[in-house]
Formats: sequence, C-alpha cells, structure tokens
Amino acid sequence: MSTARLTFSPTALSSDAFYIAGMRVADAFIGLELKDRFYAVASPLELGNFRKYSHCDKVFSLSDLQSALPAGATYAHLIALAAKKIGARKILVGDDFPAGLYTQLKKLIPTNISKGPLFPERLIKSREAQNEIRKANKICAEGIALCADLLHRSRVSKNKLLLGGETLTSELLRKRVQALFLQRGLEPLSELIIAGGAQGCDPHCLGFGPLKPRELIIVDLFAPLEASHYWGDMTRTFLKGTPSPAQVKLVTTVLAAQREAVKSIRPGIDGQKIHERIVERFSAAGFKTKKTSRGYEGFFHGTGHSLGLDCHDLGRHGKGIHSRKNILRSGEVYTVEPGLYYPAIGGCRIEDNGVVTRTGFELLSRAPYTWQV
Amino acid sequence: MSTARLTFSPTALSSDAFYIAGMRVADAFIGLELKDRFYAVASPLELGNFRKYSHCDKVFSLSDLQSALPAGATYAHLIALAAKKIGARKILVGDDFPAGLYTQLKKLIPTNISKGPLFPERLIKSREAQNEIRKANKICAEGIALCADLLHRSRVSKNKLLLGGETLTSELLRKRVQALFLQRGLEPLSELIIAGGAQGCDPHCLGFGPLKPRELIIVDLFAPLEASHYWGDMTRTFLKGTPSPAQVKLVTTVLAAQREAVKSIRPGIDGQKIHERIVERFSAAGFKTKKTSRGYEGFFHGTGHSLGLDCHDLGRHGKGIHSRKNILRSGEVYTVEPGLYYPAIGGCRIEDNGVVTRTGFELLSRAPYTWQV
Repeated sequence: MSTARLTFSPTALSSDAFYIAGMRVADAFIGLELKDRFYAVASPLELGNFRKYSHCDKVFSLSDLQSALPAGATYAHLIALAAKKIGARKILVGDDFPAGLYTQLKKLIPTNISKGPLFPERLIKSREAQNEIRKANKICAEGIALCADLLHRSRVSKNKLLLGGETLTSELLRKRVQALFLQRGLEPLSELIIAGGAQGCDPHCLGFGPLKPRELIIVDLFAPLEASHYWGDMTRTFLKGTPSPAQVKLVTTVLAAQREAVKSIRPGIDGQKIHERIVERFSAAGFKTKKTSRGYEGFFHGTGHSLGLDCHDLGRHGKGIHSRKNILRSGEVYTVEPGLYYPAIGGCRIEDNGVVTRTGFELLSRAPYTWQV
Repeated sequence: MSTARLTFSPTALSSDAFYIAGMRVADAFIGLELKDRFYAVASPLELGNFRKYSHCDKVFSLSDLQSALPAGATYAHLIALAAKKIGARKILVGDDFPAGLYTQLKKLIPTNISKGPLFPERLIKSREAQNEIRKANKICAEGIALCADLLHRSRVSKNKLLLGGETLTSELLRKRVQALFLQRGLEPLSELIIAGGAQGCDPHCLGFGPLKPRELIIVDLFAPLEASHYWGDMTRTFLKGTPSPAQVKLVTTVLAAQREAVKSIRPGIDGQKIHERIVERFSAAGFKTKKTSRGYEGFFHGTGHSLGLDCHDLGRHGKGIHSRKNILRSGEVYTVEPGLYYPAIGGCRIEDNGVVTRTGFELLSRAPYTWQV
C-alpha cells in the first residue's frame, strides 16, 4: 500500500502540517508522508528555511516542479507530481482538508478522506515531545505563581482587591501573564482564563472586571511554545480572604479527586473508568451534577484531554480521559482536570498533565496546590 | 435564488466565519448568510456570548436543533436543518471548507464550492471597518516610533548598537514591540519583521541577531486588533550612523515612488498600472530587478494587497495593487509598499495603507518618514 498522507495548509492552521514540517510555515505548502518519511514542496521564499530548519527527509522546490509541468498547472497537478516522485499511488487527507483542492485532486489521483485522525501516531509522544510539554508547563506554572503573588500582595478594600492604588481585575492579571509568556517564549494567548465567582462557573468565560475577596478565582493557563508549538496547560484555583466552609469543602474535594485520578492512571486502564470514579466521588460528597435553567452545575466537562501540538490534541478526533473505551497507552499525554461549579459557592478546577509510562503516570507539570493567598 | 453561504470553522481559522459572527468563537460553529442576513448555530457554551456580542440577525440553539433530529444526527444534518429553517435551498461554501463535511453535506442538500471568494463584498470596507483599520495602524505606528526611539537612543560601538549595556538585536526590538501591542490591544504576533542588512533583502526573514550601524533596517509591523480583528500593516526603514551614497539613493527612490503611487490611486484606475509605473521608475533610476544565484534582487513583490479582517484580505482570492486588471473601487483598502532589495546595499520598504475614496485615496496610516536615526 503506497498511500501518502497529505496536508495543504499554513502551519498556523494545521498542526498536521506542523507535524510534517517541524517548523512554522506562513503560507500553505504541500506536505506529504509516506512510510514514515516526510516530504515538503517549498516555494522559493521558504526553500532556504525548509532546508535549514525543517525535519523533512526531502524538500522539493516548488519552482522546479512547476517547470516540469505545462503552464497553468494547478496545485492539484503539483501534488499529483510530487506524489508520483515519492512513489505514492494514493492520497489520504484529513477531513479538514480544503474541499476545493480535494475535488480537483481526486480527478488526478485516487484520494480518500480519513475517517479518523490523519496522524493517529501523534497521540504517542517521544521523549523530546514530552520535554517540550514540560518546558511549556514550566512557563504556565510561572504564570500561576505570578497570579498567586499578585493576589497575595493585594489588599482587601470593601468588595475589591487593590494592588498599589489599582483595582485588581481579570484583565490586569491576564495582561501580566501574557507579558510574562511573551518574555519566556510561550505564545501570549488572549484566551487565558482568569475568572472569579460565578464567572468561574462558566467554563467558556475568560473572566472580566474586578476580582473579589472571598470568591474562588480559577486561573487556567494554556499556550504553545513559540518554537516547537507543544502546549502547556495548567489550572489552579485561588481565594483571597477567608473562605466559607462550603468553599473549603468544594476545593478539598476537587483536589483529593484530582490527586486520586493522577495516581490511578496507568497503561491498560480505561480512561472512562477514571472519569466515572471522579463523578462517583463527587456525588458521594454531595456534589451532584444537574441541568438548571441557566445551564449546568456540578461537574459537566471531561476529566482530561490529550495534549501535544494542539491543546486539545488531534481536535475532535483526539481522545480524552473520559472518552468511551479509551484504553490508555504508554506515551500518551493527558490533562487531569476535574472541577466543580456552583454559582452560589464558586468554581474550582485543578489541572495538571502528564505522560502515561510503562507502569503508571508521570506528571509533566508542577506547581503548588496552596489556594488561600 | 435562495443559496445560503456557509462557514464551519472557529473564527481563529476563518475570517469568513468571523465576518458572519462578528465576534471570536473558539470552536467550529455553523455560520450562514442568506440575502444579507446572518445566522449562527450556537452550542450551549456559546449561546450566551452569541446573543450578547455577535451581530447575527438570528442565533439558533444547537441543542434545540439536535432535539428536533433523530439521535446520531451529524453536523451535516444540523446544517441541512438550519438551512431549511432560514429558507435556503442550496449551499455555497468557500474552497477552504472542510472536505469531510462537504462530502456528507452534498448528499443532503445541493452544495457547491465557490470558485472565487465566498464573500467578495468583504473587499468594500464600511466606515466602521475603515476606523478599525485606522486604530490598528495607529498602534503599528507606535511600534515603529518605539523602534526609532530605541535605535536613536542606542550607541554605536564598533559593529554593534548598545542600549544601556545591552546589544540591540532584532529579537529585543521585536519583544519590545510585542509588549507594546499586548498593552494596546493589538495581537502581539511573533512574525513581526525587524531585519537589518542582507536579512532585510529576504522578505520572509523576520530578522535575528545584532542590528548593525550603517545597515538599512526594515521594520514591518502588522497585526489584528484583538476585539474587531481588523489589521494594521505598516513599514518604515531606518539606518543608524552615516548612510552610504548608494543607501541614500535607494531610500529616496523608494520613498518618492511610494508617495507618487499613493497620490495616483483613485477609483477606476487599474492597480496593475500603478505597479508598472513603480517598476519603470525604479528601472529609470538604475534599480533593475533580476534573478541571481541566491534568489532575486530589485523589486520582486507586489505593490500592495487588500487589507481587512485578514492581513492579505481574502487570501489568494484577494486583490492586490499589482493584480492583473484590478480596477480599483471606492471603499477598497490597500497597502502601498514598494521596496528595493540589494544585499550589497541593503533593503528598503516603505508601507502605508488607505482607502480608495470617490475621488482619490485617503491614507489610514500615519508615521514620519525620517529614516536616519
């Protein structure tokens, strides 16, 4: 079977394209894989970069290929020619491949759309990839420490927190973390979650406005390294002032569940079981999940997702700790991030991530679990 | 003809999706347009945001649509149902639409792939859009002023520039500009070009390492506003120390050509003519364009591209000042960025952008043209 896997995208829009190139490429380029060898067709503007920085086994010059074709040849013709040069008889593309090019290409060479992920092997992370994720997490942990420090140094004034003369807001902390990320080589995403009180109970709310004393504040930081594009993803929950008994119970329950889940991960175990065990534990502690008029409360997201070149690695084809019959394998990297959300109490999520080893689970993220600042 | 135009993408990956939603959406969502009305199908996590912040005329709830369909209904079924609800009989998608979904969808409803851009009307910018571009340019201009200031304040020491005790590098300036952008609400892209000497002659080189005295330094800053996603894009060229006569001639020639081009733009004129006039002017001044063993030298890129929700607006379907028979229309926004690149002298590019008005061209970008710092 000489089926080549194909991408055609800038790396910013496709981590499969990044997986082939091993470097950032600003414009769409032809990326091919056949029998574990990687190929790219590089434009004159990118040829030098590809030869210097990419990990492709062979790089073709776009203009050389073009000069071998009649004038007016399209990208579909170029792809068909490149496929022939590497000995491929068929093409497989991801389901996110551009439809226009797909319809042209299949007139020239048998082309199928993958039903699952195009590169399922991306789920297993090399030592090098694990180290990159560790590096990215280390910078996320610095961001979390920065937030903890700013919250610690702030002063409670009525229903606000003041730092120097300034009111501490979600936006202010986010900007400070982004500036740190920028300095440290992690992309300063504007989607970082720093959300207090009821806002923290809405998992898609980034958080805005003044942070308040005696409210749980979720700090969920995630971003890829600029160079390798491997992601870090960590969450801690903080509170300034004296917590209520309900808040103490909520946080300690999430923390204990997270630690138990981390300890229980090993190859061969069904991820869904780990998720169900957390749900049971929450329920036994009196934290039920239910639909309300305003949405959900309790624990209503998955326990963890695969982490790698994407934050949710392999997108909707990726696997989570909660996925049905997902038997965990050595080398897979997952987040472990149970949470509980009740607008009347607040939200708490604790997230680490690690790699499934031959015998268990090794955390790739480290940060203190102290939550009262 | 009741053909609805459709997108299915997170807004980060498709400015057509952003054009429909008018706000950032983290996950892929169904976006539809029919007869100048915009529609979206929002997941429970996004419904609140859509109703508060989007400019859609109608927002459907994903879970409501799902409950009207049998279990196991796919996104293709949901799209077909939404299309029916808005009275569409056919679907038109862009050529970048995901191939997997396209093949499923066309079994349910007649679906065509657009040959040109999905929303060609995006080329004409409203007053509001023009103002957003002006805002983004203003922050780019602040970045350029920051670079000029740091270069001005630096001290020549042998073949380097020192600022305080530190060597001035491309990376250092880039980080400073990114930090400024972050603070001012422009995305702090890591692709900003700050490239000196021979590096500036390679238009895809971002610039790295120490900046040097007596070398031309290209500062090309471009980024979208976080909120509206309209882009700014401006370039100035600087030199620290005393320029050579060849450098003076190169810069003054580019600057005069850029100013003449800006003055000559008006509706009805063929953009390609403006480009050709610049090429002639350069040639008459002795600056020929030719292919060398290492690439090209002279003027080997287009004079300008359409600017909007994308930096190169509408991607490869967009129009440039240089595009063949591109008759400029009132409301279109273009960059004007001639450049000359000779590794032995250095590179110079001067870039502004503006909107074609009823009678001429109004600049949306402003920054001084002083180049000796």
